[in-house]
Amino acid sequence: MAVLPLLTDDEITPEARAVFDEIRAARGSDFINNFWRALAQDPATLRATWDRLKVGMGPGALDPKVKEMLYVAVSSANGCSYCVHSHTAVARAKGMTEAEYAELLAIIGMASQTNALATALQVPVDPEFEAD
Amino acid sequence: MAVLPLLTDDEITPEARAVFDEIRAARGSDFINNFWRALAQDPATLRATWDRLKVGMGPGALDPKVKEMLYVAVSSANGCSYCVHSHTAVARAKGMTEAEYAELLAIIGMASQTNALATALQVPVDPEFEAD
Amino acid sequence: MAVLPLLTDDEITPEARAVFDEIRAARGSDFINNFWRALAQDPATLRATWDRLKVGMGPGALDPKVKEMLYVAVSSANGCSYCVHSHTAVARAKGMTEAEYAELLAIIGMASQTNALATALQVPVDPEFEAD
Amino acid sequence: MAVLPLLTDDEITPEARAVFDEIRAARGSDFINNFWRALAQDPATLRATWDRLKVGMGPGALDPKVKEMLYVAVSSANGCSYCVHSHTAVARAKGMTEAEYAELLAIIGMASQTNALATALQVPVDPEFEAD
Amino acid sequence: MAVLPLLTDDEITPEARAVFDEIRAARGSDFINNFWRALAQDPATLRATWDRLKVGMGPGALDPKVKEMLYVAVSSANGCSYCVHSHTAVARAKGMTEAEYAELLAIIGMASQTNALATALQVPVDPEFEAD
Amino acid sequence: MAVLPLLTDDEITPEARAVFDEIRAARGSDFINNFWRALAQDPATLRATWDRLKVGMGPGALDPKVKEMLYVAVSSANGCSYCVHSHTAVARAKGMTEAEYAELLAIIGMASQTNALATALQVPVDPEFEAD
Repeated sequence: MAVLPLLTDDEITPEARAVFDEIRAARGSDFINNFWRALAQDPATLRATWDRLKVGMGPGALDPKVKEMLYVAVSSANGCSYCVHSHTAVARAKGMTEAEYAELLAIIGMASQTNALATALQVPVDPEFEAD
Repeated sequence: MAVLPLLTDDEITPEARAVFDEIRAARGSDFINNFWRALAQDPATLRATWDRLKVGMGPGALDPKVKEMLYVAVSSANGCSYCVHSHTAVARAKGMTEAEYAELLAIIGMASQTNALATALQVPVDPEFEAD
Repeated sequence: MAVLPLLTDDEITPEARAVFDEIRAARGSDFINNFWRALAQDPATLRATWDRLKVGMGPGALDPKVKEMLYVAVSSANGCSYCVHSHTAVARAKGMTEAEYAELLAIIGMASQTNALATALQVPVDPEFEAD
Repeated sequence: MAVLPLLTDDEITPEARAVFDEIRAARGSDFINNFWRALAQDPATLRATWDRLKVGMGPGALDPKVKEMLYVAVSSANGCSYCVHSHTAVARAKGMTEAEYAELLAIIGMASQTNALATALQVPVDPEFEAD
Repeated sequence: MAVLPLLTDDEITPEARAVFDEIRAARGSDFINNFWRALAQDPATLRATWDRLKVGMGPGALDPKVKEMLYVAVSSANGCSYCVHSHTAVARAKGMTEAEYAELLAIIGMASQTNALATALQVPVDPEFEAD
Repeated sequence: MAVLPLLTDDEITPEARAVFDEIRAARGSDFINNFWRALAQDPATLRATWDRLKVGMGPGALDPKVKEMLYVAVSSANGCSYCVHSHTAVARAKGMTEAEYAELLAIIGMASQTNALATALQVPVDPEFEAD
């Protein structure tokens, strides 16, 4: 289904191999998912994307589990089938409970509904919501 | 800017007034933002929308502050200008810190970038991410 | 707010003028809205767009009022502020009642909510819904 | 392909079963499509969603067939593959003719084209289209 | 997977056949892809769509290869899986190199990221970017 | 209109100032547009974003003018009003002619129309378009 081949470990450059090694070490698993195998065609983009996600999705002011739930919310609204699948799996792996997932789904639904209503009605922004 | 009038307190029905009263009580403030003034044209939709948000965005498995951040993430990806403004304001009112907001923005940006790459590459979903 | 000038009647080519004349005759009004004044920079696109809409939005298997409501539904989901404004106005001019408008808004909201849920859940299409 | 299991009749709660019974009675058919089988994981959301659609998509100011066509229009613009499939099937079941479907498709195409042009040109809204 | 049948050469009208003949001649190939086989249900739309693409995507001020890359960019941002697949293939057939493709992908990713940031921040347009 | 203040030169950190200096030097102009003034709240994101765009949008396999046109195409499809304005201005500054701009607009319109049709019809991808 991809528009370019998904590279096996035997087909990648040493630069891509170094990123795969880091992904495996970070996850404690040999599994490399298709997104990285597609990006491996362009080792510089693979490196930059991994470096950004590794830092950005790690511990910070927000809990990594919450970060993954935010990623699912954005991916779903953007209609990215692949990303919804992969980040829902990661959110679960990072401890998202069934109750939390139900609330995430409810917010995705509610927000999409009120987003649509506000857009259909073209409601003007209240001055109270503007930065000075 | 709206496609229908925003109703003042003097123009609404008793059913809409009852909802406005609940919103004011829940927030401890007299301010009613434009979204509700637009929905007041249709008191049944106003009531249903308020009832759903009141419950759905209140305390639960997830912290209300995190819920608002999820709402901002969806609203931003859906391109709803009104909703981004209003829910960013509410998230701050519920205690979102500058550091948390910076991480929210970073995730919105990263997710949108990798969403776009996965879509442009049409990466097939790994069987590992499917529910059995 | 536009990225190119909106042309006045004095600034347009004879080809664009001919389209403006047809729009005025079709509507029985002298008013030319900004979309056409922007397109007038490129008379060939102006002509092709007007010709398509004139035929496509006129009487057919569907009532012109229903056609405008479908146009509002698509425009709202696509987040086109200009088009939501203009086609809501035209739908009203073609007889959309307040009750019909309330149902249109309700469907836009409901559909956006269930669209979001189906996408977040990545629900597989039932074979019953496929063309043979 | 889903991110959570589609429940069989043997796996659902009594609350979910009650909703399935209502869906079957309303449709005069034993078939329960995957969307409801996915939502059955969360009986409260299943109930709320069915109740809303049952009322909202039934007879009203607009013909149920027209309502389904509006649903297809929104679902298509939102890129919801599942919803396009299911609501196109329902619209046909409710009597949408081939001629009406051809006009629906034409409007979806035309609106998407002019939506894109108005957005690319950032055409400002005419004051004539604003509510008072 | 389609919501209507893909027509074989034996099932199409003479009007649709004439368009298929033109597509085959223009491409120097017997292959007719599924998009045209779906549109063949409605020969008038098939004709209008082919006529517009034949002219619009041919040589002009922009190189046909660049035009296909722009088509991929729009299709990807619109989340059209079919169109991403078909126009990526055509762009390659028209000479898009691996280096050009890598830059196209990088721009799709970067633009989606900054689009998301500008929307999340609701950055106001600088007067310097407005026409006149 | 923003959800956070746009910082003046007097309000930014030395790290942000260093980026502003680079932007001014690269453009040969003192003008800093609002996107960067909003990002200046978070100097690390400001730096990362500028570094990526500076390299990614500079000379490469593709002409910088073509790169800006691709950016406009993505931004328009993503509905980012700010980005459409700013990158249309930059594309013109980098030499985009009126004829090229007319073709860009035509492709944005055509692609959006056929994207919508392919999505509404749920046309299955031809095996010929898949990477082996």
